[in-house]
Amino acid sequence: MLKNRLYLDALEGKEVQRPPVWMMRQAGRFLPEFRALRDQYDFFTRCQTPELAAEITLMPVKRFPIDAAILFSDILVVPQAMGMNFQMKESVGPYLEDPITCLEDIESLVNPPIQDSLGYVLDAIDITLEQLNNEIPLIGFAGSPWTILCYAIEGKGSKTFDKAKSFCFQKPEWAHKLLQKITDYTILYLEKKIEHGVHAVQIFDSWGGLLSPKDYNEFSWKYINQIVDALEQKSKVIVFGKGCWFALETMSQSKACALGVDWTISPQKAREFSGGEITLQGNFDPAKLLSSPVKIYNEAQQMVRDFGTKSYIANLGHGILPNVPVENAEAFIKAIVEFQK
Amino acid sequence: MLKNRLYLDALEGKEVQRPPVWMMRQAGRFLPEFRALRDQYDFFTRCQTPELAAEITLMPVKRFPIDAAILFSDILVVPQAMGMNFQMKESVGPYLEDPITCLEDIESLVNPPIQDSLGYVLDAIDITLEQLNNEIPLIGFAGSPWTILCYAIEGKGSKTFDKAKSFCFQKPEWAHKLLQKITDYTILYLEKKIEHGVHAVQIFDSWGGLLSPKDYNEFSWKYINQIVDALEQKSKVIVFGKGCWFALETMSQSKACALGVDWTISPQKAREFSGGEITLQGNFDPAKLLSSPVKIYNEAQQMVRDFGTKSYIANLGHGILPNVPVENAEAFIKAIVEFQK
Repeated sequence: MLKNRLYLDALEGKEVQRPPVWMMRQAGRFLPEFRALRDQYDFFTRCQTPELAAEITLMPVKRFPIDAAILFSDILVVPQAMGMNFQMKESVGPYLEDPITCLEDIESLVNPPIQDSLGYVLDAIDITLEQLNNEIPLIGFAGSPWTILCYAIEGKGSKTFDKAKSFCFQKPEWAHKLLQKITDYTILYLEKKIEHGVHAVQIFDSWGGLLSPKDYNEFSWKYINQIVDALEQKSKVIVFGKGCWFALETMSQSKACALGVDWTISPQKAREFSGGEITLQGNFDPAKLLSSPVKIYNEAQQMVRDFGTKSYIANLGHGILPNVPVENAEAFIKAIVEFQK
Repeated sequence: MLKNRLYLDALEGKEVQRPPVWMMRQAGRFLPEFRALRDQYDFFTRCQTPELAAEITLMPVKRFPIDAAILFSDILVVPQAMGMNFQMKESVGPYLEDPITCLEDIESLVNPPIQDSLGYVLDAIDITLEQLNNEIPLIGFAGSPWTILCYAIEGKGSKTFDKAKSFCFQKPEWAHKLLQKITDYTILYLEKKIEHGVHAVQIFDSWGGLLSPKDYNEFSWKYINQIVDALEQKSKVIVFGKGCWFALETMSQSKACALGVDWTISPQKAREFSGGEITLQGNFDPAKLLSSPVKIYNEAQQMVRDFGTKSYIANLGHGILPNVPVENAEAFIKAIVEFQK
């Protein structure tokens, strides 16, 4: 039924003519039409209004010949639904006035039925799928429990999330209780997304790379793996851990069907560490989209040669930057679409 | 003549009873006596007044049984001497009002004799060495040319230094001109430090880990290696590249005598990637110094077991955090000093 199966074929490790391509944060600020909408509605209004979320999701689809759409939303809608009142603050970013500091805060978190608390996401999926009309697959996503914990404890973004880390080191039993609560609710959330028809789900572990390999296993991977195990029979699960090169071997032995990698690892090493079989997704340096279209085109094609066309999804190594010219993003996508073996 | 040769022995790969220990930013804000001095003099006054720099350098030496002192200074004194007017701004950090934007900016940089522009650093070395009285060695340092470029282009700190990176991608020939100028002047600077008696020099590449392995070779390692080659006959050179796990193999084949590693790589992998021979320095997670003294003591001793006592310098994986209790830093140092094979 799906007209363009390139993305799903790559996830299944099938032979393809060329790799599929999409870009993390492709429905983002670099698009003039996104910026126009941004001036009218604040961040969480855009997430919470199904028609707007669907409209934004489709913006890059209308512009570029991409092989997958990803639902416009935010990883913080999950902790919001659990009772943490995250806001998006001008020039601060995500902000939580009362971050979690004690066991009572953790015990007071709620887990209402997804349909009640996050029904707007499910509605956005319904609208988007209808408008996509089976042209390309739709990806759903969630943050990793560790990454959500980082924001829940720190209360805002941070270079190093030392407050969140020291919370885990000082009170590991509290941290595990919080991580388990987030994990359980995230599983319910992604199950509902899958029921509503997303073709794959991606888990974003933005801050796993701030941990030592040992602490990563204890505080991040353990919970990501629970999510993977709970969902693998129901959908395809992709895990993207920024800076988590050291965990590629462990991840590749899980039931995840693909792993995202950032640009600080060479394609060769990424294949080596992940065992050479599992599908990899990445890893163009987002800052390189600020160079010239010709350079972008050539380096993107070199990236495909380095990863190989099989079991590979072309993408950036992290989200697209707001100041990337549209023609530069276009050059990146064109390089993949025109790639010839 | 030096009474405690443990640090030098480790750099030379000699058998030792226990590894030497020091902490990056050990002369820093976590010390109450540092904070008291900080209220009286601003940041660059402290760097530029030899008596103050020496006094601060000795603060941790007086408190802890550490095996090396590192001269209190800043990596930005080098670009300051070249004509970039860096200031330290409250709640912003390093700040350059007119960052480098064009070729003329690069061509207008100066390279006055070190004795004139950075004589205060040399004077601080003289005073410090006299007061150290040959008890322990003194380390001198400089930033890597790439890391200095990051601040010179960006004008201030950044999570991702995308402006600096895109400058390099858009105008590589300008970037190389700037990097070469910084390199040449850094060599002169470190040569003078060595003449004045520092026992080793460490190059801090704080932002090399933001680059892809290929771009790292082009924009960072190429210049670090020039510095290493220029100095290796005159002193011992240690290279610390934060996030630069992917370059350990290349680095280990250079004439550097030791490599610093951060906590996101396991000791086993660090040994494997660096070939197993070269001395390694690191890599306790600085945030872990916010856990309990008992936990710190045990994990620090485990770190020594994992690295092995030979060709190893115990340290943190990055600078000590300002909010670390003094007794926690003490537990870390005690764990190493009391380590028994």
